Amino acid sequence: MNTRIDLNADLGESFGQWVLGDDDAMLGLVSSANVACGFHAGDPSTLRTTTAGAAGAGLTVGAQVSYPDLRGFGRRFLDIEPAALTDDVIYQIGALDGLCRVAGTRVRYVKPHGALYNATRTHTAQARAVVDAVRAYDPALPVLGLPGSELLAEAEKAGLRPVAEFFVDRGYTADGALVPRREPGALLDDAGAAADRLVRMLTDGVVRAVDGTDVAVRAESACVHGDSPGAVAMAQRVRDALTGAGITIGAFVR
Amino acid sequence: MNTRIDLNADLGESFGQWVLGDDDAMLGLVSSANVACGFHAGDPSTLRTTTAGAAGAGLTVGAQVSYPDLRGFGRRFLDIEPAALTDDVIYQIGALDGLCRVAGTRVRYVKPHGALYNATRTHTAQARAVVDAVRAYDPALPVLGLPGSELLAEAEKAGLRPVAEFFVDRGYTADGALVPRREPGALLDDAGAAADRLVRMLTDGVVRAVDGTDVAVRAESACVHGDSPGAVAMAQRVRDALTGAGITIGAFVR
Amino acid sequence: MNTRIDLNADLGESFGQWVLGDDDAMLGLVSSANVACGFHAGDPSTLRTTTAGAAGAGLTVGAQVSYPDLRGFGRRFLDIEPAALTDDVIYQIGALDGLCRVAGTRVRYVKPHGALYNATRTHTAQARAVVDAVRAYDPALPVLGLPGSELLAEAEKAGLRPVAEFFVDRGYTADGALVPRREPGALLDDAGAAADRLVRMLTDGVVRAVDGTDVAVRAESACVHGDSPGAVAMAQRVRDALTGAGITIGAFVR
Amino acid sequence: MNTRIDLNADLGESFGQWVLGDDDAMLGLVSSANVACGFHAGDPSTLRTTTAGAAGAGLTVGAQVSYPDLRGFGRRFLDIEPAALTDDVIYQIGALDGLCRVAGTRVRYVKPHGALYNATRTHTAQARAVVDAVRAYDPALPVLGLPGSELLAEAEKAGLRPVAEFFVDRGYTADGALVPRREPGALLDDAGAAADRLVRMLTDGVVRAVDGTDVAVRAESACVHGDSPGAVAMAQRVRDALTGAGITIGAFVR
Repeated sequence: MNTRIDLNADLGESFGQWVLGDDDAMLGLVSSANVACGFHAGDPSTLRTTTAGAAGAGLTVGAQVSYPDLRGFGRRFLDIEPAALTDDVIYQIGALDGLCRVAGTRVRYVKPHGALYNATRTHTAQARAVVDAVRAYDPALPVLGLPGSELLAEAEKAGLRPVAEFFVDRGYTADGALVPRREPGALLDDAGAAADRLVRMLTDGVVRAVDGTDVAVRAESACVHGDSPGAVAMAQRVRDALTGAGITIGAFVR
Repeated sequence: MNTRIDLNADLGESFGQWVLGDDDAMLGLVSSANVACGFHAGDPSTLRTTTAGAAGAGLTVGAQVSYPDLRGFGRRFLDIEPAALTDDVIYQIGALDGLCRVAGTRVRYVKPHGALYNATRTHTAQARAVVDAVRAYDPALPVLGLPGSELLAEAEKAGLRPVAEFFVDRGYTADGALVPRREPGALLDDAGAAADRLVRMLTDGVVRAVDGTDVAVRAESACVHGDSPGAVAMAQRVRDALTGAGITIGAFVR
Repeated sequence: MNTRIDLNADLGESFGQWVLGDDDAMLGLVSSANVACGFHAGDPSTLRTTTAGAAGAGLTVGAQVSYPDLRGFGRRFLDIEPAALTDDVIYQIGALDGLCRVAGTRVRYVKPHGALYNATRTHTAQARAVVDAVRAYDPALPVLGLPGSELLAEAEKAGLRPVAEFFVDRGYTADGALVPRREPGALLDDAGAAADRLVRMLTDGVVRAVDGTDVAVRAESACVHGDSPGAVAMAQRVRDALTGAGITIGAFVR
Repeated sequence: MNTRIDLNADLGESFGQWVLGDDDAMLGLVSSANVACGFHAGDPSTLRTTTAGAAGAGLTVGAQVSYPDLRGFGRRFLDIEPAALTDDVIYQIGALDGLCRVAGTRVRYVKPHGALYNATRTHTAQARAVVDAVRAYDPALPVLGLPGSELLAEAEKAGLRPVAEFFVDRGYTADGALVPRREPGALLDDAGAAADRLVRMLTDGVVRAVDGTDVAVRAESACVHGDSPGAVAMAQRVRDALTGAGITIGAFVR
């Protein structure tokens, strides 16, 4: 039984005049902040406010790196050459790390965002490109991703620490993958059920898949989404359930 | 008499498919590289190549921070709020520092580019905003700018090291200011005359102004432009003249 | 007494994932839509939806042209050269007109946005640059702006139709100018008072200035803001007051 | 035997300070200008200059639409949703058409650029999205593309005029496809051989493939590249060869 878990959420995703998510509320509910780096969201002032808020709340900050795509919010696959992707990721980590430094903290891990997250599940060259960037920048930084992804496999091969994450509000298939967004059971709307499922994953090491079977899942971090309407309520419910079950919430790296 | 001077040039100003300047040639001629940070020029891959080249050639790298203006190459004044400017500058320094780190070096100084350079001669709030960014990021970083500028005055007030620069190819007025670009005598085309003038500034502490009088000028660094057609030839000539006069060329910070 | 007025509002100011304003509600309340053109806000899909909505609701569409500044929402002065500004404005009008054409309507007028609106009150060269763009694109398009502005003066000189606008929620000084945003009385929060003031302007030709005196104001169009929290309620109240006073709401051009 | 052919080239691909290609020289050599629209290259001032130059030289202007990717010059596949792609293409055609209108001409055809050109050979949904944009904007506009591509097939289905193009400097396989860029024979460096091959295609309806066999190829337009070092010389040679063979060079649409 796992008596400790990290809760992570995407933060710093506003841009200029446009506000997205309730960062202030989320800062009090999670232990790790995946902060945007300006390529899919997050202008420098937003990022400075977010990193300062995260540091003030005692959260660990990770760089949520992405394709350069403000218009598409980083959710569209870009067939970027691996070498250019590596450079883009270094640029993003460095930029966010600069703002973290000013806020009295540092970038402590890296997590790809959106379409880059999805691509690096199976696209070995792009997965390796992200890992190359992290290793070149600081090999002590863990990489957060999906269990079984090429991203975590490449991270491990490169001597980086791979950290597996669990999705609090996503359905799982019988083989431990996420149910695709367009299929039934892809999203859990019921915060209570989601919270209970996370507790069970931690205590029993399994989750109930969409087909009704139990599947083994292990993760050091659980992702709660920050930009949906019920995000804050879901995160609060998950937090309460974990506390009630005697599970400590804490970052996987400090 | 000053027996040592830094030569600086703007590098890393290509963007994607578009090439600007002959960085490879300039790397062998100057001691400090003002490297773009992506806001007026310099995509991450260009910046990685440039910082690696600068590190390999033993040059000192500075962050050439600018307004966010690819289309205008950072040469158009933007009335950005000081707090937002500070955040933009931190973001840029951090991004370039990340690429430097991977290249085995670090950002060692900061120089504003283009319209931001011009604005911070007299615009106190923007000058202070740039200085605030440098101090917050790393108070050990010197600020390179025009003698008599608000930028250097604010840097000094903030406890940063101000470094005055001389323009190898620009005419000077009788009071030590640059001749505005649209006026006669603004630009020196004759590389030999420019080189001789720099040597005289270093040995005698004066330059001949456009009105024929001598004006006292002091500087720790001399800027040779990198993107004009005769840039490489001018830099080579300046370098030869300095060497011939027994003046050492070396960065003002390492 | 003026028995007819146009109500205009800024629409199409979302961008990608980021939503701003309640365009659907505003479409039912105004007669003219100042639609963003992608430079300060408005990605092509947003603009297509907005122009289709405006056409469907029988509204007149104007191009709300601006500086290229997504991050600053076009609210920061940019010292762009007049010739480049003219080209930027033509590009924006053309782009929006293309989406209008597909939606079964066309761009029928031009209004500068944000800092460009403010600049062209007094900056003759930029005002003329905007006017040059409109005249070159289609001299039949009116230009919407502040009474007394250089923009409207240049439009008139160039043979374009200048259209003066009144700000429903802004305070006026004794000489008919807007109270600067940082001063007391700059903004009217009371929708009822704002509506009554507009009716009085139309019936009596005067508004009560912040110093208590009456000042003569004439306008063919009244601007209601679309992106503030109370925007829809304010627009509804204004509409009701106008209807109650027997004033027809209708576009100044069709 | 075909006694007439259009020569097209990509123009207007500079951006701000960065210059690409020798547009002035190419304007005198081709009959159709594929002008960039700002998404992969071409700021509004560049585009205005290019469209004015093309109009002045009597050329037909086409909109070279692309993915939004300045950094990658539109050469990286973007998995954009078809509806968003349609909107992006309309925006681009409209923007360029606005600049054309001011220059006394209009957009007369549409050709996808770079990765969008490659994608629409086989990606039916993106091909249809481009076609949808053209049809919605103006169904009289032809679509220029590769023979056998989904793009031309969808154009034909939609009632648009598909125009097949031949690549002057690319090798062909025995089944009439282009030799992939990484394989031997992909590029013809010899301007004379390229010119002769084009003449033979027009007179005999065949080209010699890389395997030595002859393959039937039909095209109404021949693309000469504008941004490579030998582009101008190649275009001149092709032009001379066509003239020498009694073939008229003229746009496929006016």
